[in-house]
Amino acid sequence: MPIETIPARHGKAVRLSAGQAVEVINTHGTQVVDTWAFCVEDLDHFMSMEHTRVQNGRLMPAIGQTLWTNRREPILMMEADTSSGIHDTIMAACDRWRYEHLGCTEYHRNCADNMVEALAELGLDFHHIPQPLNLFMNIPIDADFTLVQGEPPCKPGDKVVLRAARDCVVVFSACPQDITPINGGKPVDAHFAIHD
Amino acid sequence: MPIETIPARHGKAVRLSAGQAVEVINTHGTQVVDTWAFCVEDLDHFMSMEHTRVQNGRLMPAIGQTLWTNRREPILMMEADTSSGIHDTIMAACDRWRYEHLGCTEYHRNCADNMVEALAELGLDFHHIPQPLNLFMNIPIDADFTLVQGEPPCKPGDKVVLRAARDCVVVFSACPQDITPINGGKPVDAHFAIHD
Repeated sequence: MPIETIPARHGKAVRLSAGQAVEVINTHGTQVVDTWAFCVEDLDHFMSMEHTRVQNGRLMPAIGQTLWTNRREPILMMEADTSSGIHDTIMAACDRWRYEHLGCTEYHRNCADNMVEALAELGLDFHHIPQPLNLFMNIPIDADFTLVQGEPPCKPGDKVVLRAARDCVVVFSACPQDITPINGGKPVDAHFAIHD
Repeated sequence: MPIETIPARHGKAVRLSAGQAVEVINTHGTQVVDTWAFCVEDLDHFMSMEHTRVQNGRLMPAIGQTLWTNRREPILMMEADTSSGIHDTIMAACDRWRYEHLGCTEYHRNCADNMVEALAELGLDFHHIPQPLNLFMNIPIDADFTLVQGEPPCKPGDKVVLRAARDCVVVFSACPQDITPINGGKPVDAHFAIHD
């Protein structure tokens, strides 16, 4: 299958049939990709990080682990991961309010709006923003529970493969964050490819 | 103000005006209290752990820190905490699917249904379950990112005081979990009191 682009600072949604997989590529090794998944027949039924953490008993999904919905059903499976295995499941998608708190006085592109826009491009209307699976995002937790905004510990070309356990829509956002260091200082393109 | 009971395995909702505080009491020292807060004028605007973690840069709120909504506005403030300061913000509320996965074949009371029931007692109809602030819940994270189901590191009578930054509805659930050790093995009552 052709490689498709998630343009820097933008979102992209794609439909997967049960059994298909999507390979998410950190092309430059520095880019966080916020990722959501929704059941096609009911967008209120979606991939949920808080349920996934409980079901797996792990802060972030590891190779071979399932990603669960808010009704505790499998939706994706992390089939492969060539990165360090560090991903984030606890930081809300950036949104216009985040950038206002960071001092922006004009509109700043953000992952929340990217998700809504990308779904709209598929004709889907949904405005509740679930906690995303923030692929490649590095948030170390200090002993005093402080959350550190780290840079992705990735190599160019690192990949995660997510296989669909059911028909679903997967949404990606190449995170536009350029104020904290979480995208290595500069948001760039990422890529994906669909596999049967 | 009188002390009110959150009956073991049940929920309770209460309205707070801006400036009022609620004291949540871990009467027996072993009970987790799942806690939610909603803006009165729009239940879709609610206390959000994923936004609170980002805004505070901390895994769990500490004394003096704000609890933020999904629009990154203050809704509560953690004014006091006589416990160890250990609370959970990453584990989804238990729900009927959780108990089915744990092997229950009959209905098991759960925090998600308790939230819906408690809101209904105030005439409020809301079925989306936000990630709760799980007061007194102890989920250590191991070095390999395994999440441990610990017992509350609390003393009988430990209290948290939450002061309202705006008019809101606060919902409590005395967690009915009796299969994992997170309630010290036996769900019991907790209590609360409202202060001006």
